[in-house]
Amino acid sequence: MKTDIEIAQEAKLEHIRDVAATIGIEEDDLEFYGKYKAKLSDDLWEKIKDNEDGKLVLVTAINPTPAGEGKTTTTVGLGQAMAKLNKKALIALREPSLGPCFGIKGGAAGGGYAQVVPMEDLNLHFTGDFHAITSANNLLAAMLDNHIQQGNALGIDPRQVVWKRCLDMNDRVLRNVVVGLGNKMDGMVREDHFVITVASEIMAILCLADNLADLKERLGRIIVAYNFNGEPVTADDLKATGAMAALLKDAIKPNLIQTLEHTPALVHGGPFANIAHGCNSVRATKMAMKLSDITITEAGFGADLGAEKFFDIKCRMAGLKPDAVVLVATVRALKYNGGVAKSDLAEENLDALAKGIVNLEKHIENIQKYGVPVIVTLNSFVTDTEAENEYIRKFCEERGCEFELSEVWEKGGEGGIALAQKVLETLDNKESSFHPLYSDELSIREKIEKIAKEIYGADGVVYEPAAQRQIDRIESLGFANFPVCMAKNQYSLSDDAKKLGRPEGFDIHIREVYVSAGAGFVVALTGAVMTMPGLPKVPAANGIDVTEDGKITGLF
Amino acid sequence: MKTDIEIAQEAKLEHIRDVAATIGIEEDDLEFYGKYKAKLSDDLWEKIKDNEDGKLVLVTAINPTPAGEGKTTTTVGLGQAMAKLNKKALIALREPSLGPCFGIKGGAAGGGYAQVVPMEDLNLHFTGDFHAITSANNLLAAMLDNHIQQGNALGIDPRQVVWKRCLDMNDRVLRNVVVGLGNKMDGMVREDHFVITVASEIMAILCLADNLADLKERLGRIIVAYNFNGEPVTADDLKATGAMAALLKDAIKPNLIQTLEHTPALVHGGPFANIAHGCNSVRATKMAMKLSDITITEAGFGADLGAEKFFDIKCRMAGLKPDAVVLVATVRALKYNGGVAKSDLAEENLDALAKGIVNLEKHIENIQKYGVPVIVTLNSFVTDTEAENEYIRKFCEERGCEFELSEVWEKGGEGGIALAQKVLETLDNKESSFHPLYSDELSIREKIEKIAKEIYGADGVVYEPAAQRQIDRIESLGFANFPVCMAKNQYSLSDDAKKLGRPEGFDIHIREVYVSAGAGFVVALTGAVMTMPGLPKVPAANGIDVTEDGKITGLF
Repeated sequence: MKTDIEIAQEAKLEHIRDVAATIGIEEDDLEFYGKYKAKLSDDLWEKIKDNEDGKLVLVTAINPTPAGEGKTTTTVGLGQAMAKLNKKALIALREPSLGPCFGIKGGAAGGGYAQVVPMEDLNLHFTGDFHAITSANNLLAAMLDNHIQQGNALGIDPRQVVWKRCLDMNDRVLRNVVVGLGNKMDGMVREDHFVITVASEIMAILCLADNLADLKERLGRIIVAYNFNGEPVTADDLKATGAMAALLKDAIKPNLIQTLEHTPALVHGGPFANIAHGCNSVRATKMAMKLSDITITEAGFGADLGAEKFFDIKCRMAGLKPDAVVLVATVRALKYNGGVAKSDLAEENLDALAKGIVNLEKHIENIQKYGVPVIVTLNSFVTDTEAENEYIRKFCEERGCEFELSEVWEKGGEGGIALAQKVLETLDNKESSFHPLYSDELSIREKIEKIAKEIYGADGVVYEPAAQRQIDRIESLGFANFPVCMAKNQYSLSDDAKKLGRPEGFDIHIREVYVSAGAGFVVALTGAVMTMPGLPKVPAANGIDVTEDGKITGLF
Repeated sequence: MKTDIEIAQEAKLEHIRDVAATIGIEEDDLEFYGKYKAKLSDDLWEKIKDNEDGKLVLVTAINPTPAGEGKTTTTVGLGQAMAKLNKKALIALREPSLGPCFGIKGGAAGGGYAQVVPMEDLNLHFTGDFHAITSANNLLAAMLDNHIQQGNALGIDPRQVVWKRCLDMNDRVLRNVVVGLGNKMDGMVREDHFVITVASEIMAILCLADNLADLKERLGRIIVAYNFNGEPVTADDLKATGAMAALLKDAIKPNLIQTLEHTPALVHGGPFANIAHGCNSVRATKMAMKLSDITITEAGFGADLGAEKFFDIKCRMAGLKPDAVVLVATVRALKYNGGVAKSDLAEENLDALAKGIVNLEKHIENIQKYGVPVIVTLNSFVTDTEAENEYIRKFCEERGCEFELSEVWEKGGEGGIALAQKVLETLDNKESSFHPLYSDELSIREKIEKIAKEIYGADGVVYEPAAQRQIDRIESLGFANFPVCMAKNQYSLSDDAKKLGRPEGFDIHIREVYVSAGAGFVVALTGAVMTMPGLPKVPAANGIDVTEDGKITGLF
């Protein structure tokens, strides 16, 4: 069987100019990055902004398991299938993070015959967006420490610096560091932390900003520290906003690439869904909706994180109204949720399926709370049995949602035609009455509790004393009306990664709460969520190579 | 008077496809980065490698002063002038470092009417080469610390880790840090250091590698640490080579941009000249020589650093034979060397000129030691007087070198025609008998002493005890035959930045010596040279901004 990268490298790509032409974009509105990648110019938006918006479809999934789900694969395959049906559809994905490629995660460009290409570029530097974010993030950090060094006119309290440095690398030793050692010219000593670039507030800002003017306003509002009086110090106070925006002026432009079947795909932005809001950029989604009749987008990890934040943060802020949700599961993952070991997933097991399907059930219920029609799809594996598929179909139909198998991994767009037709039927026949879960007016605690109880199924919320104080401060600073971005492990509906299925009788533990004033949300950290991953004992990097003629190998 | 960025932004650029066509490069051999930047494909080298080599001209300068010299300006202007004379010339420059743009340095793309464009892109992310180097450097660091964390099978001594993390940022608090704090899962605690990306050995390797195969060999040889037995541990030992090379596969391709007059310019690589070898990439220089009749390149800072390393490291390793050297000075800088304050440089002062011209004299003598014909040029300012110019002309001609004024800053290529003609005459009439200063066979100490005495004019060399031990270890490891890359302040021929003119009666102090086994040289740190700059009290970043329609301002 061929690996994803082998399939991707065998593909004959079309020049991105020709791919762009299929959705009416002229060469003059493209900024090429090689032959197969392009950024969409600012001028393009001016030309299309009065077009009618197309429909918006979100692809999300059950909680991820080691068995694999295939959310991006389904998103890509669905786009390919729409093209086969001669529908004007556009895929809007997130950019993968470089760091995790070298760890265990591997690439993130779909899989099998439902991939976006060039997959090596996408997984490595792509068009440099994340490097620009790293630079802007670390310029702000350098200017902050330099301000302290050069007299500290703003009275920044070195114990209350909240801005962290970042790298797009899985590098555990940078989680907790001390900087400024050496002599007087080497800065003020203080404790510091690095996060992975995708966890930077600037990533969230880039994904939520409407345009360069909005980007600058958001950057300027970033709180980097508190002064000795406890008042916030912002990026504007450090006069860093303009230079940061200059570093981001190209990164804010959406990127266009293609699927294996030459369907256009916008790939832009990629905040982590466990610690950030996990959606691609508002700008790319809005452009896609102007350029196509159906925009197919995704949100990170399971629906408890990805879809919840897509609805409550992205759609709320950007004024988007999703028309349908495709909820991806696999027979294998549901059996895993039902207690089957990874090695035994190939065998039919209806009892385990019945036990594990409660995870899917909870996600269906959750999405229905937002008033959006749901289509469940199974990303098919050859080991899935007819009985298992039928069991799930019946289960879904009893809960008022559509169901269709997807074989896009094996067959590309052809394998997604039935699903695409089901999505089209749903868009034609079912009205979305989308509304977010909570209103802006609720308090921070009320919002956290509403998400914890109604989405996660928790009994209640337990706050650490520090978190209580942090919430009080955030509300007293005037940020009570912000939505809450929950930072939670992705594997369980609870904050304990080991509780699979549909856990009950648990509390959500809030460890730390901080405001991302530029992004416009309050982050609540639960359990032991990490903002800087580490490498495993045998990192994927050990197996990655490049041949003398420039061909990458070992990137999955 | 217009600023450099205003002049650059007023320029009407040609599509890089058309610029490339003037030197016979077809569109298929270009990888576009927007409309005005392109990388040259690997295939192009295969097509041109059997062409006859053109001539090679190095542009270097006296020691830099706050008065300004204009080495890059002269390089660019000379290229523009050659085009006006219908000569097939190619400019080969270094890429500027992002970090210093936000400090005091500002941009580095030439000046006035002798600039390469787009200058904002060049000074910000350009084609991402430096970001790729940052990623590769920090991947190696992460894999190293991860190896220690995961059982340390190689027995790496945490006290003898020599590989440093890097960022392309002026960030003094990262000079000396402690990493790995926290708990057991957060790594092993040890002291660490960040350098600026241009000081990374990977930057030097990228600039010296012939091709991807050579790049990989060099990366694999990098010594990252010593084990508890004192033996070197390399990037190959960590199995990091392939993944690093994958990150660098595009960065190794030279970049093509244009001057304000649409002359093609290759801009590729940019190691610091005070701490690294300070030349653009071998690959770009060799490509330029195959594509043109005259390649005009530069080397960083004054000739004591830039030209010495160009000759003794780059030309030695790459088998290049330079045909002529253009040595840039200004009347103002020579008067500054003669003791005139910066505020008084506009006044004619022949006494100070006579006193300061000894700096130029020493550089002329130095270059003549390499057997290469010298053309001195003065980058003209309006305040320079006829008497001052004539004094310098006579001084140069008495020392057997050519002399010509240059007015490229004010007039572009037109202002460099006289200089270009002088260069052409020299290439026609004077034979270069280039040879490096020293042979491979000398010991490390002999090489250091030869450079210190013959190039810097020192009486002798004083080694700190640690440096003595380091040299002994390097020689016992078999690296005695490597050339030496001197790391010295750029402002003086000595290692004391305050000693201007032509200092005498001084020693060079060697503080630390280490081997860059991948780059293929031994670095000797003198005096107080820094590998991570800091920001000034009012950083240039404070004044940088971008307008709503994406125009950068405040970048000089």
